[in-house]
Amino acid sequence: MGIGQYNFSAGPAVLPKEVLTQARDEMLDWHGSGMSVMEMSHRGSEFMSIIQQAEADLRALMGIPSHYHVLFLQGGAWTQFAMVPMNLLRGRHTADYVYTGIWAEKAIEEASRYCEVKLAASGAAQGFHMIPPYSQWNLNPEAAYVHYTANETIGGVEFNWIPETGEVPLVVDMSSDILSKPVDVSRFGLIYAGAQKNIGPAGLTIVIVRDDLLAEPLPGTPTMMDYRTHATHGSMFNTPPTYAVYMAGLVFQHLKQTGGLQAAAERNRKKAGLLYAYIDGSGFYQNPVALDCRSLMNVPFTLRDPKLDELFLQGAEQRGLMQLKGHRLAGGMRASIYNAMPLAGVHALVDYMQDFIRLYA
Amino acid sequence: MGIGQYNFSAGPAVLPKEVLTQARDEMLDWHGSGMSVMEMSHRGSEFMSIIQQAEADLRALMGIPSHYHVLFLQGGAWTQFAMVPMNLLRGRHTADYVYTGIWAEKAIEEASRYCEVKLAASGAAQGFHMIPPYSQWNLNPEAAYVHYTANETIGGVEFNWIPETGEVPLVVDMSSDILSKPVDVSRFGLIYAGAQKNIGPAGLTIVIVRDDLLAEPLPGTPTMMDYRTHATHGSMFNTPPTYAVYMAGLVFQHLKQTGGLQAAAERNRKKAGLLYAYIDGSGFYQNPVALDCRSLMNVPFTLRDPKLDELFLQGAEQRGLMQLKGHRLAGGMRASIYNAMPLAGVHALVDYMQDFIRLYA
Repeated sequence: MGIGQYNFSAGPAVLPKEVLTQARDEMLDWHGSGMSVMEMSHRGSEFMSIIQQAEADLRALMGIPSHYHVLFLQGGAWTQFAMVPMNLLRGRHTADYVYTGIWAEKAIEEASRYCEVKLAASGAAQGFHMIPPYSQWNLNPEAAYVHYTANETIGGVEFNWIPETGEVPLVVDMSSDILSKPVDVSRFGLIYAGAQKNIGPAGLTIVIVRDDLLAEPLPGTPTMMDYRTHATHGSMFNTPPTYAVYMAGLVFQHLKQTGGLQAAAERNRKKAGLLYAYIDGSGFYQNPVALDCRSLMNVPFTLRDPKLDELFLQGAEQRGLMQLKGHRLAGGMRASIYNAMPLAGVHALVDYMQDFIRLYA
Repeated sequence: MGIGQYNFSAGPAVLPKEVLTQARDEMLDWHGSGMSVMEMSHRGSEFMSIIQQAEADLRALMGIPSHYHVLFLQGGAWTQFAMVPMNLLRGRHTADYVYTGIWAEKAIEEASRYCEVKLAASGAAQGFHMIPPYSQWNLNPEAAYVHYTANETIGGVEFNWIPETGEVPLVVDMSSDILSKPVDVSRFGLIYAGAQKNIGPAGLTIVIVRDDLLAEPLPGTPTMMDYRTHATHGSMFNTPPTYAVYMAGLVFQHLKQTGGLQAAAERNRKKAGLLYAYIDGSGFYQNPVALDCRSLMNVPFTLRDPKLDELFLQGAEQRGLMQLKGHRLAGGMRASIYNAMPLAGVHALVDYMQDFIRLYA
């Protein structure tokens, strides 16, 4: 096996080889235009066709209803942590948040600067190894919205269901599992996702927002952080991150060509199923997450003896299994197996994990 | 001549062919890592080396003193229009702005939402065809800072001098002429620039800020819009736009290899000199800007008869001279001749302009 054969980075993360190859081939001349996509005026007909096609493909893939805006923004999920309360409070003073781990916590901290945050549910008592069951949630009918984190990239905890919040708009940080499975967009008021896991390069943020939620933001909200600015101008109020939009568009087309989100979900279930089954049966590796809350995207695991961690990582790199080190806040290992990770990569990882036990257990 | 031989877009704009070629060659495998730069964890050693090299090269090129932070941000100049007042007011309530055209106006409008903006000088009475002479400026010693726009991309008006503001920090929007010439960074409190003209792909914003100006921002400033957030974390508080940083780094290296900013300035003076001299002597084309305020980056010009505009643009495209249409707010033509536009491109444009007169004048 060669260096860098499989890249398990949590993000920025592996992209489909076909997409990178096409980007390479078009780097100096996009479709006979004589220009790189990076060199195109964002208001020219060439780039307009790229961004319009990207939006149309995303709408088709996710089944986004016509009364939702699709926005191509910058600043990552962190910027959304502020934009969501700044724009969606709409005269209310409190919002419900579901506390499922480190990323939910960051969203909560930022929102707390703009409104009273009430925890509708918290996984803290269970060490964030499970999502609090819906029957235990305490939803506030006066909340401006309910916010949750679809997939905790660090904790490896993922919702496999959509919470019911009645008339209160549902807001989701879908950064690390967007496009990994079909999802009923009409259940949401607003979906946001940084691109650098399942979509494309870092520096692009997708926001999908229901028309009726576009309203006057808090006083002092910068023009660039008012959703209406971008909705009104079709994401072209200012220069969008054009190359990242192009790359995202290539990923969308690749997903359509490989069966859409239903097929992606089947592949993802198979990959994650293989890895979790091996971990659980190994008697050496361990994943702490409750069975029905396990992430299909990020699989954290520990070795029986943490003193072997460094040896495990070195051996993995020698086999071309890259970026398996766990997040600095979690320790241990983490295998991120987004859409673009092939089943063969998971097989290679499991093979290595077996070999490692034989040598060192 | 082929299609798209020379690209006069105002931004995103032409990039050096050597840079695009290197990016193409490294697209699937950066330096034997087996990964595309887009696929790298931003906290891994590979990308850390890329962003550190980019910062070091930018510091070397511009001679940035060590008591200045270099930040790699997102959101373009538009985001800076808000971040500057949100961060630099530091308890004061007023700032001085120099009104030189459309981009200065946008900065003024956004700043007016956060403080009292006083116009230190305005080119309005002269139709923004000249920069008000320094002797006529009215600087307020109580101002938190003085803001100006180094180059008006639409109006084609550029400062070839740096205003003296004494103890009041000087802030400049250098989006469209950064790296086009040497500049004494120590004269400034803060420099900002969107990357998509002279640096690299859209989606990256460079901020150079003097340490002592990092202070508590206005209440309610989002974490992502607090300069200290990014200064403290070396632009790695959240995931930076990694691929855009990589491309910017390649452009910096290319500039170093071609003689640095002094050599770039000589090339730019030669290119602009050729084009302005031809326009002024043509008796058919016209540039309205006062001689000592003419931009070396963006050259707007009109034809004697605006009814010929469409014909001029069509003929230009047939000769591979792309994106010469003027900004929608200005009309006419605009040739943007940033660093990456070769002298041969300006020659080709002038040749075409001569031929056009022969056929249609």
